[in-house]
Amino acid sequence: MRMLDIIESKKQGNKLSDDEIQFFVDGVVDGSIPDYQTSALLMAIYFNGMTDSEQTKLTMAMMHSGDHLNLSSIEGIKVDKHSTGGVGDKTSIPLAALVAALGIPVPMISGRGLGHTGGTLDKLEAIPGYKVEISESDFKKQVQKEQLAIIGATGNIAPADKKIYALRDVTATVDSIPLIAGSIMSKKIASGTDALVIDVKTGAGAFMKTLDDSRALAKALVKIGQGVGMDCMALISDMNQPLGNAIGNALEIKESIDLLNGNGPKDLLELVLTLGSHMVVLAGKAQTLDEARQKLEGTITDGSALERFRAMVVAQGGDGSVVDHPEIMPQAKFKIELPAKESGVVSEIEADEMGIASMLLGGGRQKADDQLDYAVGIVLHKKIGDKVSKGESLMTIYSDTEQIDDIKEQIYQNVKITDSASAPELIKEIIK
Amino acid sequence: MRMLDIIESKKQGNKLSDDEIQFFVDGVVDGSIPDYQTSALLMAIYFNGMTDSEQTKLTMAMMHSGDHLNLSSIEGIKVDKHSTGGVGDKTSIPLAALVAALGIPVPMISGRGLGHTGGTLDKLEAIPGYKVEISESDFKKQVQKEQLAIIGATGNIAPADKKIYALRDVTATVDSIPLIAGSIMSKKIASGTDALVIDVKTGAGAFMKTLDDSRALAKALVKIGQGVGMDCMALISDMNQPLGNAIGNALEIKESIDLLNGNGPKDLLELVLTLGSHMVVLAGKAQTLDEARQKLEGTITDGSALERFRAMVVAQGGDGSVVDHPEIMPQAKFKIELPAKESGVVSEIEADEMGIASMLLGGGRQKADDQLDYAVGIVLHKKIGDKVSKGESLMTIYSDTEQIDDIKEQIYQNVKITDSASAPELIKEIIK
Repeated sequence: MRMLDIIESKKQGNKLSDDEIQFFVDGVVDGSIPDYQTSALLMAIYFNGMTDSEQTKLTMAMMHSGDHLNLSSIEGIKVDKHSTGGVGDKTSIPLAALVAALGIPVPMISGRGLGHTGGTLDKLEAIPGYKVEISESDFKKQVQKEQLAIIGATGNIAPADKKIYALRDVTATVDSIPLIAGSIMSKKIASGTDALVIDVKTGAGAFMKTLDDSRALAKALVKIGQGVGMDCMALISDMNQPLGNAIGNALEIKESIDLLNGNGPKDLLELVLTLGSHMVVLAGKAQTLDEARQKLEGTITDGSALERFRAMVVAQGGDGSVVDHPEIMPQAKFKIELPAKESGVVSEIEADEMGIASMLLGGGRQKADDQLDYAVGIVLHKKIGDKVSKGESLMTIYSDTEQIDDIKEQIYQNVKITDSASAPELIKEIIK
Repeated sequence: MRMLDIIESKKQGNKLSDDEIQFFVDGVVDGSIPDYQTSALLMAIYFNGMTDSEQTKLTMAMMHSGDHLNLSSIEGIKVDKHSTGGVGDKTSIPLAALVAALGIPVPMISGRGLGHTGGTLDKLEAIPGYKVEISESDFKKQVQKEQLAIIGATGNIAPADKKIYALRDVTATVDSIPLIAGSIMSKKIASGTDALVIDVKTGAGAFMKTLDDSRALAKALVKIGQGVGMDCMALISDMNQPLGNAIGNALEIKESIDLLNGNGPKDLLELVLTLGSHMVVLAGKAQTLDEARQKLEGTITDGSALERFRAMVVAQGGDGSVVDHPEIMPQAKFKIELPAKESGVVSEIEADEMGIASMLLGGGRQKADDQLDYAVGIVLHKKIGDKVSKGESLMTIYSDTEQIDDIKEQIYQNVKITDSASAPELIKEIIK
């Protein structure tokens, strides 16, 4: 078998055989296939796509290229959640606590920020002492005992995906649905969960800008999951404006705690309850989505979700008092209000531009080795569809410097106020 | 400017700017662009093509990446010929002699065999003493004095093309018309000729299998040539069966000498006279193609073409007596006849399979550093449309071993005899 023939075949639009895909993945891992051949194949896949069975085979070959977790020692149906990522998306944190509070094991393996803003792990590290690097056995013990853990990847998960992703990033082949789907699912399958709910973001602040693309990705992800016997569903949610109000690491932890205390922003709460309901049904702890939702709401009311969160923080070495005193997290030196320049209704808050503003304040990485400033960020006071009067604050900017005229100007350019506008539909579609 | 953005832009189907193409070619030559990015762009070009102006810019950037010959010291309009290559294609050798015999300078820079069979330089090296590596100044002197020279590339011609070609070869991006056209024309423009006729082969034994593809390539080549002010035309000729009768290095030189003596195979002679007529008109030595053809035929009749060939051989260090005694070239140990297994009319002689058979006999390269056996090859006695009786010889195989049962079997499988068939049209189209 020759890589040249595999490239030629995909270039001609043929379906690659299981053996060909395995040969490719093996060759990437052992270095026998040079990068220039890999990138040529990736570009051919971008143009000619992959069938469902090719995607499943690619996913499984990448999954088997490294370690995978065996969580069978943990009792119960284990459920995880994955999001394709967006600005202000701290969903995983309160969601894991709500679901775990119903006795469902939530073994979450999460990531750092790839784009403008911090990832779930970055946010959690805003809590003094919180450790995301935990051994496999401690991870299992914690999930068994506390029902939840949110950690970084342990061991050598999907090394084929790591190499391929690095190459996609520099060869303009990131935005290929079979490659995105294979990358996500190879890691999720390796993480050993029984069931998975996926939040595919759509809109200006998402990786997938159009509903069509988002739907295609959601379907590919669910197909792959189901193809390997995983209970799997996806929803498509809006990412034109930021999710919730807070953007920035400590600010998003505080917002998560607020939600667990019953004071969460409406859109974030809705997304958490929707995703959570599906997780509860997949875990067999409710017959219907309505029943699941009521149970989840109960974990907020009775404080059990907040207690799960505190237990996780403590189990992972963090300071549990953060639940009562979020101010123990790093605080920004300056809080700067951004007044509306005119009266009307907010019609646009460009999510990715808000993410870039937060990054420029120090809350995200421009380069992989940038140190994060956990304190900085933005808290929105108005969202799309909200009325605003001239001079009223649109948002508070949390900054360690007062010299932020450029950032303010950038934000103003990406927040529009018109005569009328309504809040966007948050949950666009459910894909099962 | 970033290579990543250039790849993305071509992937989206955009036209690359002159600056972007220059940045790419510069980066390939100085090594600042890694091969994996180059191959991704090449694959994107395969899928999305290039406009005429992009092709011209790419060609010129590759041309300017290295040395180019200045032939202005040679008097007259200098004409060259290029062929996309086929089996039995020794056209350049007699053609250069006929045209030069009319006082037209023919400075031919030719290549070695890339595919199954030897290239023009390999064939000429079957002549004892013939040197294809000659200094630029000796090349110019020889063309001035003898009107013709056929040599290998001097100096550092189009190094960008060399690097890009090497990568195309291993990434399944050879068969892209803009890339093929740029590769050919960058070298031809660098060779300093004033006018160029191009023979684009079409059919089973050609690089371009279909007439549509051949036409598209011919048009691209002519457009690029004309775009840089070169007098340029192309014809599309048949390459379903081998050209002429001889396949193999010394055998093809002998057939070329036969043609110069007035004994050439009909199809080879027709192609030489057609290409030659266009060259003569482009050189301003005849008003019409008919007039040019008559003059060229005269150079065979009066022996002046044969004398030009002898003069070139001698000027390049070869043994001029080859003209009268072709047997001074290496001779095969065995001549093995291949009898027809049935009576009928020859309807198919797969050109590329005949080329592979000749390569397997030792006449072509399987790897770049293979040594050629100049003596071996095949001489066809029947071509498509010829009647044959059972037991009559279809061809003579020139071999250094009698153990050629596999090769015979392969040839039989690729020569078809049916009830009726007619000779294919040799010259399909003229593109100006």
